[in-house]
Amino acid sequence: MKILIKNVCIITMDSSHTGYNYGCIAVDGDVIVYIGEEEDMPRDFDAGKVIDGKGMLALPGFINAHTHSAMSIFRGYANDIPLMEWLSSRIWPMEDRLTPEDAYWLSMLSIAEMIMGGVTAFADMYMFMDQTAKAVDRSGIRAVLARGLQGPDPKSEQRLKENRCLWEEWNGHDGRIKVMVGPHAIYTCSRDYLESCMELARELGTGIHIHIAETRDEVEECRRKYGKTPVEYLEEIGLFKYHSLAAHCVHLTREDMDILSDNNVHVVHCPVSNLKLGSGVAQTAELLDKGVNVALGTDSASSNNNLSIMKEMNIAALLSKGINEDPTLLPARQVLKMATGNGAKALGWDEEIGSLEVGKKADIILLRQDGPHYHPAADPITHLVYSGHSSDVDTVIVNGNILMEGRQLTTIDLQEVYHKVGGIRTRLMGRIEIEQ
Amino acid sequence: MKILIKNVCIITMDSSHTGYNYGCIAVDGDVIVYIGEEEDMPRDFDAGKVIDGKGMLALPGFINAHTHSAMSIFRGYANDIPLMEWLSSRIWPMEDRLTPEDAYWLSMLSIAEMIMGGVTAFADMYMFMDQTAKAVDRSGIRAVLARGLQGPDPKSEQRLKENRCLWEEWNGHDGRIKVMVGPHAIYTCSRDYLESCMELARELGTGIHIHIAETRDEVEECRRKYGKTPVEYLEEIGLFKYHSLAAHCVHLTREDMDILSDNNVHVVHCPVSNLKLGSGVAQTAELLDKGVNVALGTDSASSNNNLSIMKEMNIAALLSKGINEDPTLLPARQVLKMATGNGAKALGWDEEIGSLEVGKKADIILLRQDGPHYHPAADPITHLVYSGHSSDVDTVIVNGNILMEGRQLTTIDLQEVYHKVGGIRTRLMGRIEIEQ
Repeated sequence: MKILIKNVCIITMDSSHTGYNYGCIAVDGDVIVYIGEEEDMPRDFDAGKVIDGKGMLALPGFINAHTHSAMSIFRGYANDIPLMEWLSSRIWPMEDRLTPEDAYWLSMLSIAEMIMGGVTAFADMYMFMDQTAKAVDRSGIRAVLARGLQGPDPKSEQRLKENRCLWEEWNGHDGRIKVMVGPHAIYTCSRDYLESCMELARELGTGIHIHIAETRDEVEECRRKYGKTPVEYLEEIGLFKYHSLAAHCVHLTREDMDILSDNNVHVVHCPVSNLKLGSGVAQTAELLDKGVNVALGTDSASSNNNLSIMKEMNIAALLSKGINEDPTLLPARQVLKMATGNGAKALGWDEEIGSLEVGKKADIILLRQDGPHYHPAADPITHLVYSGHSSDVDTVIVNGNILMEGRQLTTIDLQEVYHKVGGIRTRLMGRIEIEQ
Repeated sequence: MKILIKNVCIITMDSSHTGYNYGCIAVDGDVIVYIGEEEDMPRDFDAGKVIDGKGMLALPGFINAHTHSAMSIFRGYANDIPLMEWLSSRIWPMEDRLTPEDAYWLSMLSIAEMIMGGVTAFADMYMFMDQTAKAVDRSGIRAVLARGLQGPDPKSEQRLKENRCLWEEWNGHDGRIKVMVGPHAIYTCSRDYLESCMELARELGTGIHIHIAETRDEVEECRRKYGKTPVEYLEEIGLFKYHSLAAHCVHLTREDMDILSDNNVHVVHCPVSNLKLGSGVAQTAELLDKGVNVALGTDSASSNNNLSIMKEMNIAALLSKGINEDPTLLPARQVLKMATGNGAKALGWDEEIGSLEVGKKADIILLRQDGPHYHPAADPITHLVYSGHSSDVDTVIVNGNILMEGRQLTTIDLQEVYHKVGGIRTRLMGRIEIEQ
């Protein structure tokens, strides 16, 4: 379909920081074919769909570079308790009872929330990833998927096989799905198992999605066991030779930061989850200073409890300033870059997405600016990062397809998703009462 | 008018933590006359207005215990720059050019945003406070107002006089306005001037609204000048003998915390503003542990850039956990208490507002829970604090009057406010362009 978005304020996030106060964007099929002033628009562009962007802001879609979408089942399920108790007594026992069909609906719930918040691409790592792939396929969103891998244990070879099958079945699908290899973390994977994961990544010619240095305990245990930090250990075994999507990286030494920089590791800053689980605060400003590509992620709805990249932008910007007592750190445009271009790079997709440019894929979002929080008018990026919220997102286009318009989803039946997910919740956890 | 809210999940925030999964609330005039199950409702209650609360959550309105509503002119105006540069080169020169009428419209913009985010009462301190009072009167919201006071300088006696006039004209107005005395801070008021402020508070029989220990610099300067911390200094001069609404309190010693506790000082935690300005992070969990009444505030839209108490709740809960690396701190219910009952206490209004109880004022909000971020269903307080957002607020009642229903404001013409505020912005700051 040919789409024309007219009369819209455009933030392209291209390398020259091009913006238009009143511009238009033309989409043909899955590609952007024109961006600029309306008067320079090719006259023979015959749009099948015209969107009036009056009063709205057009941006490249946000990229959620680390989540576990099927974990939406745990949203609000267990909070305000210590991490290990949370995992061992609440999360893990329930995970054993999830079925593949559950994972499909739970992924769909997360995808619905992400689309409604302007997320057009995400990176996921969890079990039943073929079900998440199905939900990605049907919803029209874009994703980089990895089977979560742990081992050795009786099922660890099977998991590796699932990751390979996932790649065979879904990698490249519709130009919207990529598959990576997903070793969970150094404390859930032995060195041999990590090497098997790397071997699979080599064979498939793909990247690795992993959690690194999320907690102080992880770092201390690693030092005890290997005499090294997690980053030093992973460098030693050669993992960073692969395109590495490294979630969290909260507890790093200066040397760790240099290693990440030297090896072009892509770090995913997940400030909300790190705060909520009591993991700590990443030194994001310093990482960015060292030239590391830092993207933003929500982690799962069980530790966030939103999947809103606009919220991550806001909190990332606030947190670096507050913790370092320096209001000049992480200015608005840099944070927006983390949520778009840096995310695209982290997903290995920066040739196609992450900015609005002619020839790039049409992953475009439109935000309303008619709430009181957008008044008086000011630099739109400032308002977006410091005042904006996911609920301002009006229209979402991925790969040239409209997935939401006027806040109505076009590919997902929300009521059906709520019904299915409510059923799963009741089956697993019983009736919900107000906690007294 | 008599209002009946039916079929609603109610969180009363009363002292016994009463909640109803499907209850109803009856309002007669400005007072709540019934809360409970529908079948026990007095049969002769003849409601002029029935609200179906199906799927919604009823709560006491949120209380924003520290803001400067007319500063909405500065939202998004200057960000990501050092505090003193921000104040001296950007904020102060513009403030000199504000007119009383500007302050009316700018206050109205802030009040609109607060109502739309479920805030039913706020505490303000700024200039042109009679204009803010007029906006409070017309909008129907509830407020505790103080003239911001600094001195000595040629205008400082005039300011004190304005604070007195404000009290004479507005204190007790419609049962919705109280007036306090507003000495700005120890670094903008001399000891003599602070004593004049205290004398005025004594005469009027009212409280004091002040900024305390917002920045490290303030504390260091105070130590140099008086050999004491700001809290020690204010205790020494006797300020805490008055009902004290103390904004920020970011940089405190253990002894300061004990003084605040011993003197029943009401602290207003403003986490977003403290982060954004690079002021630091208050030790809120410790203050609460010491028995200090801690409320929540947004500070102004120029340093936030929202006036959302739901955002403050979320960030307060996240921040205490993350900074202290302890996920058990500031659990959801405690944070909701800060935003309601603690706020009411801080405003000296806890007899009348802060919880939903028979005999209390009808300051009630209804929140929609139909977004994906409220699914699957879980404890509603958890979802509210960790997943919720201001845009979920559907209906707002203050003093028995409906100020918003179905997200439509009933007392404020938003387009008129935007038009007026846009004009002020252009007059003061010129045309807005995208910052490159």
